[in-house]
Order: sequence, then C-alpha cells, then structure tokens
Amino acid sequence: MVQTPDPLRLGATIGILGGGQLGRMLSVAASRLGFVTHIYEPGANPPAGQVADRVTTAAYEDHAALTAFAESADVITYEFENIPTEALDVLETHRPIRPGREALRISQDRLTEKVFLQGLGLQTAPFADIAGADDLTAALAEIGTPAILKTRRFGYDGKGQSRLSASTDAQTALAEMAGAPALLEGFVEFSHEVSVIAARGIDGAVACFDPGENVHRDGILRTTTVPARLSSAQRTDAILLAANILNALEYVGVLGVELFVTGRGLIVNEIAPRVHNSGHWTQNGCAVDQFEQHIRAVAGWPLGNGQRHADVVMENLIGDDMNRVPELARQLETALHIYGKADVKPGRKMGHVNRITQKS
Amino acid sequence: MVQTPDPLRLGATIGILGGGQLGRMLSVAASRLGFVTHIYEPGANPPAGQVADRVTTAAYEDHAALTAFAESADVITYEFENIPTEALDVLETHRPIRPGREALRISQDRLTEKVFLQGLGLQTAPFADIAGADDLTAALAEIGTPAILKTRRFGYDGKGQSRLSASTDAQTALAEMAGAPALLEGFVEFSHEVSVIAARGIDGAVACFDPGENVHRDGILRTTTVPARLSSAQRTDAILLAANILNALEYVGVLGVELFVTGRGLIVNEIAPRVHNSGHWTQNGCAVDQFEQHIRAVAGWPLGNGQRHADVVMENLIGDDMNRVPELARQLETALHIYGKADVKPGRKMGHVNRITQKS
Repeated sequence: MVQTPDPLRLGATIGILGGGQLGRMLSVAASRLGFVTHIYEPGANPPAGQVADRVTTAAYEDHAALTAFAESADVITYEFENIPTEALDVLETHRPIRPGREALRISQDRLTEKVFLQGLGLQTAPFADIAGADDLTAALAEIGTPAILKTRRFGYDGKGQSRLSASTDAQTALAEMAGAPALLEGFVEFSHEVSVIAARGIDGAVACFDPGENVHRDGILRTTTVPARLSSAQRTDAILLAANILNALEYVGVLGVELFVTGRGLIVNEIAPRVHNSGHWTQNGCAVDQFEQHIRAVAGWPLGNGQRHADVVMENLIGDDMNRVPELARQLETALHIYGKADVKPGRKMGHVNRITQKS
Repeated sequence: MVQTPDPLRLGATIGILGGGQLGRMLSVAASRLGFVTHIYEPGANPPAGQVADRVTTAAYEDHAALTAFAESADVITYEFENIPTEALDVLETHRPIRPGREALRISQDRLTEKVFLQGLGLQTAPFADIAGADDLTAALAEIGTPAILKTRRFGYDGKGQSRLSASTDAQTALAEMAGAPALLEGFVEFSHEVSVIAARGIDGAVACFDPGENVHRDGILRTTTVPARLSSAQRTDAILLAANILNALEYVGVLGVELFVTGRGLIVNEIAPRVHNSGHWTQNGCAVDQFEQHIRAVAGWPLGNGQRHADVVMENLIGDDMNRVPELARQLETALHIYGKADVKPGRKMGHVNRITQKS
C-alpha cells in the first residue's frame, strides 16, 4: 500500500504559480483554512498579490527566484497549465507540485490530451496532427469542413485558433499558426456545452460539483448555469467520465472538464488541470467552493462538501461590463466578485457575478 | 436634503484599524468587492496582514504613522472599539472614519452606553456609576447582589469584570478595578441571550441579519445558533430596537447588539460598533455576510442581501480546540474558518466553524 503524504500543517505556505483571479481566489480559500500563500508571477502588481502573504515578481526563466520560491513553500500549485517545463523541473526538485506533472504534460498539448482521452475510451472531436501543409490537406479530406486549426500548445480563450469554413481557407489558417505545431479539429454538432468541476483528494477520494451549462461568446465564457440541462443518465455519465480522468492521472486537486452534449453522448472538449471559470458559481452555491476544494486536495486534507444548495447563474464581467457594477451592487439576488485589476481592457475578465435563486 | 458622499470607486483603499480575525475577514470581503485594504496594527504579524494589501506596524500614539496610514486610505474603519481618542482625532483630520465618532464615544464607555440606550427608551440592566467605595456601598444597597463591577472602558471577553455575590465582596472587587472608573451592573434574570447584527448604509437604509442565539462560557462566546429561540413578536422587537440604535447614531456600517430575552421583554446587554463574533454564521448562511455588509456600508455602496438560506450553528475554536481541526475538516456539514494565528494560547480565539443544515 502506498503511503499518502502527511496533510499540511496549519500555517503552512502554499506556493501558487500565477497571480491572476484564479490565484487570488485560491489565496482567499487557503487563508480560510489557516494557510498562507506565496504568489509567483512575472507581471507586476498581480491581483492575487492583494490578498496573498507574499509575492515574487520574476520570470519563469529565473531559476534563482524559482528556487527561493519553492523553498519558501510547503507545496506548489498553479492557476494555469501553460507553465514552462523547465520551470517545473526546477521547482519539483524542491517541493511537490500538485496537481502532478502528468496532468500538466497532457493538458499542455491539445494533441496529447486528445490521444489520452481516447485511450480512456472517451469521445472527442475528430482530430489530426498538423505539421505542415500536406498534413492539413490530408486531414481536411478526412475530417472535412467546417473545422478549426489550433496550436497544440499555449491556447486559451479562443487564442491560437483559426476557423476553416472551406478547404480554400487552409493556407490562411496555416499562416496564422506561424509555424507552431498544430491540430485540426472537426466540428461537433452539439446542443449545448456543460462542464464538470471535479476534485480528487490525495487519498484517492473523488467529489464532483454539479455540472454547469456554459455559454461562450467570442471564445470567452460568458455564463454558467446550474443546474445544467442534462438527463439523469447524462449527469451520471458526466461525473463518471470526470472521475475516470482523475483516476487515470492519479490527480490531486480540482480539474475542469468541458463536455459537448450530443445525440451520440457526451464528447470531451477539453480538460484544464486547475480551478475553472465555469466553477465560479460554487462560491455562492456550495458550502465548500472549488477554490477551497482545490486547496484541501493539494494540502492533503480531506475533500469538503460541494453539495449544491442553490440555483446559480454565473456571469463573467468582461471589459466594459465593469460599468454595470454600481447597478449590479443594488441587485439583491446578485453576489459580486471583483478581481482588483487596475486596467479595464476589452476581452479582459474583470470579475463575475453569481445570481442566486432557490434550488429548483 | 443632506447629500450622501460618493460611493468608493473600485480599487479604492479601505484602511482598517486592528489586524485580528475581524480585520482579516473584513479584508477578504473588501477584496471581493474590488477594494484593497491597509491594516494598522501595533502588534507584529497580524492575522489580517496575510490577506491585506498593506500593513503598517505602529503604535496608536505614532502620529506620523497614523497620518501616513490615513492618507493612503480613502475611508477608515476598525475591527474594535477601544481605539484611543487622540488617534481618532489625528485620523479624522485626513479621512472619514466609519462608523462615526459618536458610535465610538458611546460604546467605549459602558456608562455612557447605558445612559444612551435608556435615552432611546430601551431596557438595560440596572446600573450605577462607581467612582469609589462610597458609590459602591450606595449602589449595592439599591441594586443588591449578585451584581458585577465592570471598568467603564476597555473591557472585552469578560476582562475588567468582577462578580459580587454579596456586599462583603465590595472591597475585593473595587481593588480589582485598580482605580479605574467603574460601573456596577445588577444581574438580569434571562432565559437566553440573542444578538442582532444590524447594518445601516450611508443612505440610511437599514438591514438586519436574522437574530442568533448565543452561549458564553468563561465570558467568551462559544456558540451562536440561528434561528434563535424567539417568538415572532420578539424577533420584530429585536430588529426594531437595533434599527432604533442605528438611526439614533446616524450609523454607517455593521453594529452588534446583544440582548437578554426575559419575561419582561428584551434587555440590551451591550452594543459593539463593528462586525461581531456572533455574526460569523452569516459567512455560510447568507449570500452577503456581515463582513461584506460592513464594507458595503463604509464604502458608501448599497447594502447587500443578508437573507438567511440555511440553519447554522457557529462554534468558536478557542485555544486547544485547534487540535480538533483534522477531525472537523472531515465533517461534511462543517465549514472551517481559521485565523492564521501563530501561537495557540488558552482562551485565544483561533478560528470558528459553521455547522450548516437545511433551513428549518
């Protein structure tokens, strides 16, 4: 029997890579459990720094800063998956990284991720590896259009993607990849998208939040609604497949799983080895939200109670949506969550609101 | 018509006097609304500092530090009422203090507070001003025993109090006051104690959380239970009298009102011009908790939704209770709130738990 590591003691330091809103809300959750946090973030004045005990402002190439950061922490976690591999190598010689390296390796590369998911017997969109023009021609012949060409690495919020309506778009789309390894993905006919925010503890216990239904615009999540429109069979499927993924990765922490709901079952869109925008509703819908659940897991503590006690619609506040804050603050059914970012930019996630109603 | 001040802009700084657990939880609530906080605290490494943007470690006699602190903030609030008057004088020349000076003046002195409450037509325990031995003899003849001799100022958690079982205890009790101005309070026969956590916005709007029922041991709050055992008439009385106090003080922020439930109505025990230990249940029982409600008020924002959605029993974790944290972390109905204090001491409030059940 494998021995599980000791749970983190009260007062221990959790190192968090990335100082954006996810790191910020992880920090708050960590404080609630009696931990302190240390944020590592290349950008100046990160939102998470306002609520963290310590902040290191340094690049992911700064091995001395990475080492000092790792040594200050008892365990290291992260708010985003695109951490340079070399930085992870440095950090891991000093402290455990949770969720572990395998989850990062897989989710950092769209191709690796899709192969992994299929290996678990899960459905994905049709896809093909695209190293150059010949690959693309062959793949388009097989997958057809419409399709999306995506960089294999470092994509988020619709970035690094190009849509092909017809084969004639191939050259333009390939040029947009700028030589980066890419993937062609076929379109999936789906009625709606849902996501499961799933957690696995260090002891192997699994707990999933109720699936949420997501609406995107311009590649950015706009709203998540719980409960999602799912039959009870679909709900069970969604949770079982998320647990399947967690167990295959021997995962520790919270994982976001995006699913397309189709006539031929649930199709996995993508996974994210971290707390997830579509799980923000849990802050006002559950006693233990996704942030605390993640901290509990990476700290080696037991998972908490993620049962849903309300219906919630989470809406992201993006760019100029911030002008609506005074009005939103007056709405009694609306809970505000603002990220403390100094500059409002178009497309930038500035906060979110949770609209809470009685559980249906 | 009096013009209300402009609401605080996003990103504004809220200065908080005191860096204990109340300042800590106020800081977290402020961050949720997009504010940053600056803590002023004489003691090193205050719990609130772990989740605040800035900390000033300086004495309340340090006028230069107070001035710099005030100038860094847009508004100043506090987590405790015993702030030296001279410090308040310095701060107020630079920035508004909310709740205002009148609430502090009254609640800093038990005698002034009782006179104020009676002036509003509210019931208090019988009391008498005690400047020396003669006063005490006369007061004991009128009020009788058992009674409690209390310092007029700077008492909390049962400190600065001496119980008199008989007139013969007078000399010992007076010696314990060490020459400080004191107050003799008669005992009140009551069935139980409740408290109302009441909020008033800058526009005069009032919102009260559902009353909680409090159990003390050794002068320290142990548990608060909502709903409290109250008839609907008593509940209405409790909320109306809290609103009466708020309006009389032109109060801005959250106020705690402790009440004895007796056969001849509700008797006001004491008021605290701040968030209150007996309001911690709101963190897991309401969409907007007492900390956010206080921040909304002092920021000049509209009050939020404090409607109760669950039954809650709040239990303080005091001293060695912290040894129970691993067990508490496994209980699914229990939400943990740990204060990040380095040293466990007997009688020290280290955290609390909220036990959540479906609303009855």
